[in-house]
Amino acid sequence: MKFATEYLWFNTEKKREYINITDTVEGIVSKSGVQEGMVLVSAMHITASVYVNDAESGLIQDIDDWLEELAPFKEDYRHHRTGETNGDAHLKNLIMHHEVIVPITEGRLDLGPWQQIYYAEFDGRRRKRVIVKVMGE
Amino acid sequence: MKFATEYLWFNTEKKREYINITDTVEGIVSKSGVQEGMVLVSAMHITASVYVNDAESGLIQDIDDWLEELAPFKEDYRHHRTGETNGDAHLKNLIMHHEVIVPITEGRLDLGPWQQIYYAEFDGRRRKRVIVKVMGE
Amino acid sequence: MKFATEYLWFNTEKKREYINITDTVEGIVSKSGVQEGMVLVSAMHITASVYVNDAESGLIQDIDDWLEELAPFKEDYRHHRTGETNGDAHLKNLIMHHEVIVPITEGRLDLGPWQQIYYAEFDGRRRKRVIVKVMGE
Repeated sequence: MKFATEYLWFNTEKKREYINITDTVEGIVSKSGVQEGMVLVSAMHITASVYVNDAESGLIQDIDDWLEELAPFKEDYRHHRTGETNGDAHLKNLIMHHEVIVPITEGRLDLGPWQQIYYAEFDGRRRKRVIVKVMGE
Repeated sequence: MKFATEYLWFNTEKKREYINITDTVEGIVSKSGVQEGMVLVSAMHITASVYVNDAESGLIQDIDDWLEELAPFKEDYRHHRTGETNGDAHLKNLIMHHEVIVPITEGRLDLGPWQQIYYAEFDGRRRKRVIVKVMGE
Repeated sequence: MKFATEYLWFNTEKKREYINITDTVEGIVSKSGVQEGMVLVSAMHITASVYVNDAESGLIQDIDDWLEELAPFKEDYRHHRTGETNGDAHLKNLIMHHEVIVPITEGRLDLGPWQQIYYAEFDGRRRKRVIVKVMGE
């Protein structure tokens, strides 16, 4: 049984950003030597997500607009009584989820042709982390 | 450590369809001989989901109506500038997610009494795939 | 390879409740002796969720209000023709998902500083179960 754990760091320029991390994850899997198994890719924050979808810039803007509709920025979240202003980022995280598990087959990410792994930042301009843990043989 | 990987193919008649795949997944787990572990069931497309919920036809229609409310078909998604018309299917996929991990205990799917594994198609009438990967001992 | 499986039982006083189970999961991981691996924490019901987010009481009320907006209680879900009245709880479960996988590194849950594991009950006042399955070395 082999395990490999790496941490990716992000510090986005914009408050919300969508970053394709597929090649980085593929590189970690390749370096691990795991041929069969799974890789967990998980945001370590409650205002960021990891998801799988298309690398198409129009769609990414659609996703961003849609998240703002379903989980809008508002002044009056109860959470803001703590001094925070990022209530919407918590809710966006809950829709999109913080993690994915990707299967590894013959040493490669076993994704469909259009599936790409994204880090989605909802409360950026600060250092944030993603854990990548490979597990298999 | 044992691994087993199988791919399920779908080609639905309708654009949106909900297909119970619990018995198929149970069969793959059984054939793998894994007694303790997990099985990953993951759509390999960005316009389809795998989820766990009830096998009740009224509820499935409720889910379908509700997804159409939260992520409606619209002409004017930016994604459609690529020539696609399935922007809504991408967003439905994001709400429902593309994968589940089901625990395996004593050689069986360790699900609650009402939990069933579903493949949800949001952009059908074409060949689509689901990966089932069993991992354990 | 080590496996450990435990079941947590809940019987909430209120219909909807959010319960921090991080310490309980950490205890199960610690007892298992697994140093490297993953723990699956999964609701065994279709009207309850397990999710990761902040242990902040204002935010939890925000989440509850927001779920009621996105997946409201209504009389007229088709699912209610079965005699049930919990259609909304099924939809809330679908937004929030029923499970998380948490990485284990050096014998500890490898969570970010604010990440806490929650059991979310959407149809309480009855006995419900969560499976916790540890897998690793």
